[in-house]
Amino acid sequence: MAYRAPVAETVFFLDNCTSLGRLAGKGALAELSTDLVAHVLQEAGKFAADKIAPLNRVGDKEGTPFVNGKVVMPKGWTETYRAWAADGWNAVTGPQEWGGQGLPSMVGTACLEFWNGANMAFGVGPMLTMAAIDALEAHGSDELKRVYLGKMVSGEWMATMQLTEPQAGSDLALLRSRATPAGDGSYRLKGTKIFITYGEHDMTANIVHFVLARLPDAPPGTKGISLFLVPKFMVKADGSLGPRNDLRCASIEHKMGIHGSPTCVMNYGDNEGATGFLVGKENNGLAAMFTMMNNARLAVGAQGVGVGEAATQQAYTYAHERKQGRGQNGKDGPVAIVEHPDVKRMLLTMRALTNASRAICLKNADALDRARHGEGETERRAAGEEAALLTPVAKAFSTDAGIETSSLNIQVHGGMGFIEETGAAQLYRDSRIAAIYEGTNGIQAVDLVTRKITLAGGAVLQRVVAGYRDTADHVAALGDKAFGDTAKRLEATLAALERASEHLLRVLPANPAAALAGATPYLKLFGLAAGGAYLADIALAARAAAAKGDTDPLHPARIATARFFAENLAPVADGLADTVIGGGDSVLRAEAALVA
Amino acid sequence: MAYRAPVAETVFFLDNCTSLGRLAGKGALAELSTDLVAHVLQEAGKFAADKIAPLNRVGDKEGTPFVNGKVVMPKGWTETYRAWAADGWNAVTGPQEWGGQGLPSMVGTACLEFWNGANMAFGVGPMLTMAAIDALEAHGSDELKRVYLGKMVSGEWMATMQLTEPQAGSDLALLRSRATPAGDGSYRLKGTKIFITYGEHDMTANIVHFVLARLPDAPPGTKGISLFLVPKFMVKADGSLGPRNDLRCASIEHKMGIHGSPTCVMNYGDNEGATGFLVGKENNGLAAMFTMMNNARLAVGAQGVGVGEAATQQAYTYAHERKQGRGQNGKDGPVAIVEHPDVKRMLLTMRALTNASRAICLKNADALDRARHGEGETERRAAGEEAALLTPVAKAFSTDAGIETSSLNIQVHGGMGFIEETGAAQLYRDSRIAAIYEGTNGIQAVDLVTRKITLAGGAVLQRVVAGYRDTADHVAALGDKAFGDTAKRLEATLAALERASEHLLRVLPANPAAALAGATPYLKLFGLAAGGAYLADIALAARAAAAKGDTDPLHPARIATARFFAENLAPVADGLADTVIGGGDSVLRAEAALVA
Repeated sequence: MAYRAPVAETVFFLDNCTSLGRLAGKGALAELSTDLVAHVLQEAGKFAADKIAPLNRVGDKEGTPFVNGKVVMPKGWTETYRAWAADGWNAVTGPQEWGGQGLPSMVGTACLEFWNGANMAFGVGPMLTMAAIDALEAHGSDELKRVYLGKMVSGEWMATMQLTEPQAGSDLALLRSRATPAGDGSYRLKGTKIFITYGEHDMTANIVHFVLARLPDAPPGTKGISLFLVPKFMVKADGSLGPRNDLRCASIEHKMGIHGSPTCVMNYGDNEGATGFLVGKENNGLAAMFTMMNNARLAVGAQGVGVGEAATQQAYTYAHERKQGRGQNGKDGPVAIVEHPDVKRMLLTMRALTNASRAICLKNADALDRARHGEGETERRAAGEEAALLTPVAKAFSTDAGIETSSLNIQVHGGMGFIEETGAAQLYRDSRIAAIYEGTNGIQAVDLVTRKITLAGGAVLQRVVAGYRDTADHVAALGDKAFGDTAKRLEATLAALERASEHLLRVLPANPAAALAGATPYLKLFGLAAGGAYLADIALAARAAAAKGDTDPLHPARIATARFFAENLAPVADGLADTVIGGGDSVLRAEAALVA
Repeated sequence: MAYRAPVAETVFFLDNCTSLGRLAGKGALAELSTDLVAHVLQEAGKFAADKIAPLNRVGDKEGTPFVNGKVVMPKGWTETYRAWAADGWNAVTGPQEWGGQGLPSMVGTACLEFWNGANMAFGVGPMLTMAAIDALEAHGSDELKRVYLGKMVSGEWMATMQLTEPQAGSDLALLRSRATPAGDGSYRLKGTKIFITYGEHDMTANIVHFVLARLPDAPPGTKGISLFLVPKFMVKADGSLGPRNDLRCASIEHKMGIHGSPTCVMNYGDNEGATGFLVGKENNGLAAMFTMMNNARLAVGAQGVGVGEAATQQAYTYAHERKQGRGQNGKDGPVAIVEHPDVKRMLLTMRALTNASRAICLKNADALDRARHGEGETERRAAGEEAALLTPVAKAFSTDAGIETSSLNIQVHGGMGFIEETGAAQLYRDSRIAAIYEGTNGIQAVDLVTRKITLAGGAVLQRVVAGYRDTADHVAALGDKAFGDTAKRLEATLAALERASEHLLRVLPANPAAALAGATPYLKLFGLAAGGAYLADIALAARAAAAKGDTDPLHPARIATARFFAENLAPVADGLADTVIGGGDSVLRAEAALVA
């Protein structure tokens, strides 16, 4: 399977449907142009396809054996990672002060999609390093930044996020790892962390662990959690590596997918305690961790898009090669299976879900960029709120779409899809984790309902939906037959979203459980609205470009994809709203049906 | 994970919602009683849970290595299979004339669910033997029956179905294997078959292969295909085994799931040609194969139910054990995650999908039983048509449900679900094949639309839907608050199904492609209608039993499950109908978006 990064589609979206053109050339982005972005994405796509994708299958087959306390990375991974970092790819969005390129999140998110589309197990490592960079930049002391940030930005050292313990997964209040002040400003950590992605390996000379733990006098619950930077090797004053810290990988997990990504059990403090340094304030670790987490959630969304794109490409290729059955209208067989209506439906579903997810993730990144680089406090604050609203949708909708798309890829392949050599099975296995880590998709839905649609009393949601309605109005006003029922369906989806939103905002204060019971169908409904609106935006831009004489053959495809999404995927929106509004009681009163 | 066969739920359904009570005690079923059925299912459930389930994980881990031309079965499998056959479990539905117990298909289908719920890779082998028994009984010569049928019914010899070749998967017209008359009434076969389930192993002393091939003068396409019985070892006149036939397993596939089931490439005629015997008439092999296939399709549906049940049980258990987060209404944490509304939703979705799928499969079996044992030609014919209509739904809806349920099981487990040791991942990997083999679910949808809803000009469909409407009317007439909106939702689902059906029947003759474009959402819609109606039947029976003083604690659960399905899963029905009716054009006119 030859993965090709979707550079043209991404560049078209960034140029036509985001604020990139407006932000570029001003302020901190003074040196940026849309041409430069296109060039960066072109090169990123080349590296992803030529260097990273070929390592995907070997990573799946070899995994990362744990031998004598060391993780053995798959063949070729270390060299490729180092070449990748040396080419500056870890530093795309990193702060310029620390050697980064300071490119917008839109560019970084697109690149993350490419790395993960080429090889999800490879992409997940740097993704966490990048999230840690954000946290350290936002919350770390100058001294910690001076010692660690440059190496992390360049990718010379990778970083990890360490939250989970056996008894504390989604619920960090239950966290038990301990940190004791050592008297010299540092701390000694003891405890066990599990599910630590890239917790141990020798791809980089050092690994910078970001670990949540409790101080001796910490209050219980999440208000007593602090964040510590705990290096694998201590760093000497001259920047060279000193002795090994008192931490180790105890074992690695045998996972269903992303075999090339070592998932570690980490032990801290077998002896005197691992030396760690406080990041941010004492007992304020959750705030720092959420800086990482929000970045990582969007990045996981991009993983969903990446694996969805890879699966879509593979299915398209196979459907054009494989010949079975007679064609429509008496055409003699065998014909390529892409000619069968049901196969067309599968392929279009894959394409529509993938492009919609990409658009949601890039719009989320766009909002983050406007929150940082927008003009004036008002725009920046509004954009920050928009990003906050979109993040759970970007994470959950895109990863669900990645799973569905990789499942459809298997289905298009028939029996071949179930054979490991084909590669479709790996995408299916790999994609499944993305709906779980960095906050399960159920937690994303709860976050959306309890903390996001409620922002500014619902005004943020209203503003975003108003934008979607503008798109629907625009499509309706055109009356272009090529758009079919796109406007009508998008309007109906938005009406359903508004109906469900009003219900949730009304019942949430008095009866949160009733609102939470509808959280997952609500998030799906939100994704159908956002995805449908953004695909329509793309279609409108394609139509406008074609009207100006641009003969890009993808323009009709862009319109067809928006129409397919509207007429074939969005029609369940009203039913989802009914479920959000009317289904909660049957969830909450089903005690009898919930006995184990 | 301790699998428990859902005996009580199955017996309740068979006793209250099928014709079992009416058929038992009469004609060929004179010796049958509902008590006997309950006893058989109790014992089957015990064997499945105690003997077969413990082999599930070892099969997944060991697989079936191919060593020196031999398939090595996982530890314990051969002994357990032989004990299972010796206990008569292969013979449950087999013809009494050949040593079978002649029990109804309802009982056989329930047993198949149990074997497959305990261990899908184990269950799939006998499933195909049973399908082959049907074909040989219906189409074989007396001589072939005499030599092979008794051994197949007892399970002393297993059987295989061999259709697929590298170029001929869903499209059997492309089949190339050759059979030449040998002059003595037998034939010599040459060719290669792929994806042959249990094509080679030493669990049984002989294997009886049922192979599709072409005679030298056969017309092209599917009208030139004949079915042959080709034994692994020739059978001597005294019934003892003779020399090995000219066929061999060339390799086995490395699959994503059902690792304990050897999937073989089979070569016929490396030397003089494999000796085969015609089953049925020359060039009429497809008819014989469809006897096997229809049986196998329902059986695969039962696999979906089985794996769904296993996944549901595992998730329920974990959700009661795992403690994370605070409870509703200020309840202190940590609470069992079953208390979180979103987890409740996942669990209820699993339970509702599994019970609905089981009901669809058992009603399909019920129709098969009435087609055989019903009173008078009219009932038997009508029942046969009903079975034909339900088969694609039973196969596709149940296997899709099994996949969704096994995915939700992973989600309920969070990170633990992605770790192979938990067992949730295996169910997810195993379940995926069921949507592909014995006719992909897309082909089931096409079958439903082109050959099934059209039966008797749509009258069969009307009859079945009228039955569902009776259920809805019954629920509505009760006005019982415990049913919530069950009646209203079921009525809306049926209205959507009728709307979509009328559309398909209208457009099918002139524009089959437009109908086929909506086949998959139509099948899903049909499943929501059928599943919703049958769950409501169960709930009505539970209510009636409770009203008579039956204190079975599952009665409230039955009502709650029907209500949850109606209010939370069925509301998308109207949107699916819209897609069937309005979405086809955007599928068929999307050429631009279908370029590879």
